[in-house]
Amino acid sequence: MRQPVLSAEEVAAFLDEVFPQQAGVYRVVSVAPMSAVLTQAIDDRHLRPGGTVSGPTMFAIADCAFYVAVLAMIGREALTVTTTLTINFLRKPAATDLRAEARILKLGRTLATGDVLVYSEGMADPAAHAAVTYAVPSARA
Amino acid sequence: MRQPVLSAEEVAAFLDEVFPQQAGVYRVVSVAPMSAVLTQAIDDRHLRPGGTVSGPTMFAIADCAFYVAVLAMIGREALTVTTTLTINFLRKPAATDLRAEARILKLGRTLATGDVLVYSEGMADPAAHAAVTYAVPSARA
Amino acid sequence: MRQPVLSAEEVAAFLDEVFPQQAGVYRVVSVAPMSAVLTQAIDDRHLRPGGTVSGPTMFAIADCAFYVAVLAMIGREALTVTTTLTINFLRKPAATDLRAEARILKLGRTLATGDVLVYSEGMADPAAHAAVTYAVPSARA
Amino acid sequence: MRQPVLSAEEVAAFLDEVFPQQAGVYRVVSVAPMSAVLTQAIDDRHLRPGGTVSGPTMFAIADCAFYVAVLAMIGREALTVTTTLTINFLRKPAATDLRAEARILKLGRTLATGDVLVYSEGMADPAAHAAVTYAVPSARA
Repeated sequence: MRQPVLSAEEVAAFLDEVFPQQAGVYRVVSVAPMSAVLTQAIDDRHLRPGGTVSGPTMFAIADCAFYVAVLAMIGREALTVTTTLTINFLRKPAATDLRAEARILKLGRTLATGDVLVYSEGMADPAAHAAVTYAVPSARA
Repeated sequence: MRQPVLSAEEVAAFLDEVFPQQAGVYRVVSVAPMSAVLTQAIDDRHLRPGGTVSGPTMFAIADCAFYVAVLAMIGREALTVTTTLTINFLRKPAATDLRAEARILKLGRTLATGDVLVYSEGMADPAAHAAVTYAVPSARA
Repeated sequence: MRQPVLSAEEVAAFLDEVFPQQAGVYRVVSVAPMSAVLTQAIDDRHLRPGGTVSGPTMFAIADCAFYVAVLAMIGREALTVTTTLTINFLRKPAATDLRAEARILKLGRTLATGDVLVYSEGMADPAAHAAVTYAVPSARA
Repeated sequence: MRQPVLSAEEVAAFLDEVFPQQAGVYRVVSVAPMSAVLTQAIDDRHLRPGGTVSGPTMFAIADCAFYVAVLAMIGREALTVTTTLTINFLRKPAATDLRAEARILKLGRTLATGDVLVYSEGMADPAAHAAVTYAVPSARA
């Protein structure tokens, strides 16, 4: 199986560089062939009444986790962009940190497709599932 | 055709009440039978490098516009929640205000389904398209 | 607005040529800039118990209607293929002919994205809605 | 973990009963807690030019595999219907038999949500991935 070309630390540094306004929001826990794990500390800004995490917060970590999994495989390509994301909200998340586990199912010449499970720390079952497609710069072909 | 039971002002007031942390983020421009229009003033927090609006920002306005369209039809039901949202990113949005136009295609007893077009003000073509399903409290049946 | 490069008759002839096994299944009613309309005569093979049209039948006409809309705009490109299709089933269709109305929201260099409404003839409200992305041969760029 | 209430044989018999027109199309290989595996023998009717399996054929097995996984858990409920299905086509399938592996991520009171991987026999990587939501009869609550 094809190996990542960037380490977790290298992807994290690249994220901070291209998205400085979200520096520190996510922690890149690990990257592996065709997969990545991210966590996010949750604070009041992400909460909804009833102590649950907002939908856009779960969308954002799913999207970013897949981006990290792709970057780890293809290298520093800022022009990699989401084309389609389908998110199913499964369970009310807890007001605890989030963890997103991304899996690439196809890494093609122009598109990368896969899915992401989003968990609340401490819950066994996922809070959300996303199916994601990214366009990757064809220059790398 | 079934008429809205809440006016734009009434939905806006309800949004501020149940999501106080996003008070003032969206403006409910209009509600009509099975549809609603929202706008959002864009500032630095929503921008990505290159002067484009972030994906989570477009997800959030699409999600909220559909919520508003549904609430206008069914009334003050805070427990109405997103179950599935598919978003297609079509064009790099401009660094200008966003407008979201939501359309309900089916308002059922337990599910409401439809779609949303998201525009950058000043652009003729949409920046994103979302297909959305919400679960509506069955109590209202 | 960019005009179609193929007429309804030309797209229909091309469909019969590349998909001979489905010749006669669909009728290309019309093509227009960034849109197309297809109909399908329904017979026993497409029905489910209770006299309703099967999900795969509705998926297939939605997929084909979008293909026709794209081909009309870009010409005879058999390698145009579906990458992602999200279908929401809205209402039990009647055991009558189907009509699919496809709209292209973005016709890019490598991807075409849009949506399709599927109706049962005689019903005012749609039976299904699909959001669709096709990959188009980059050779045409 | 909750156990299936129907065996593979029992689900297969129920499928033949409620969908007699597709009797023999699918083989229910196995059911397990929150999952199911189906296979389908491919013949000329399912093929596209170039010896590849059609999109609607892959849609149909994904949809049916998830239905089987849900029925195995909830019992003989013919009124269980697809509400939303997002399918990503990943690789050109071979002209060989199909196998679909369905996983339920959430089995709720009114909705069941999960995903399905579709493989061509003999290929290590999936040909398609589907995220699926079914409405389940609330009577069972």
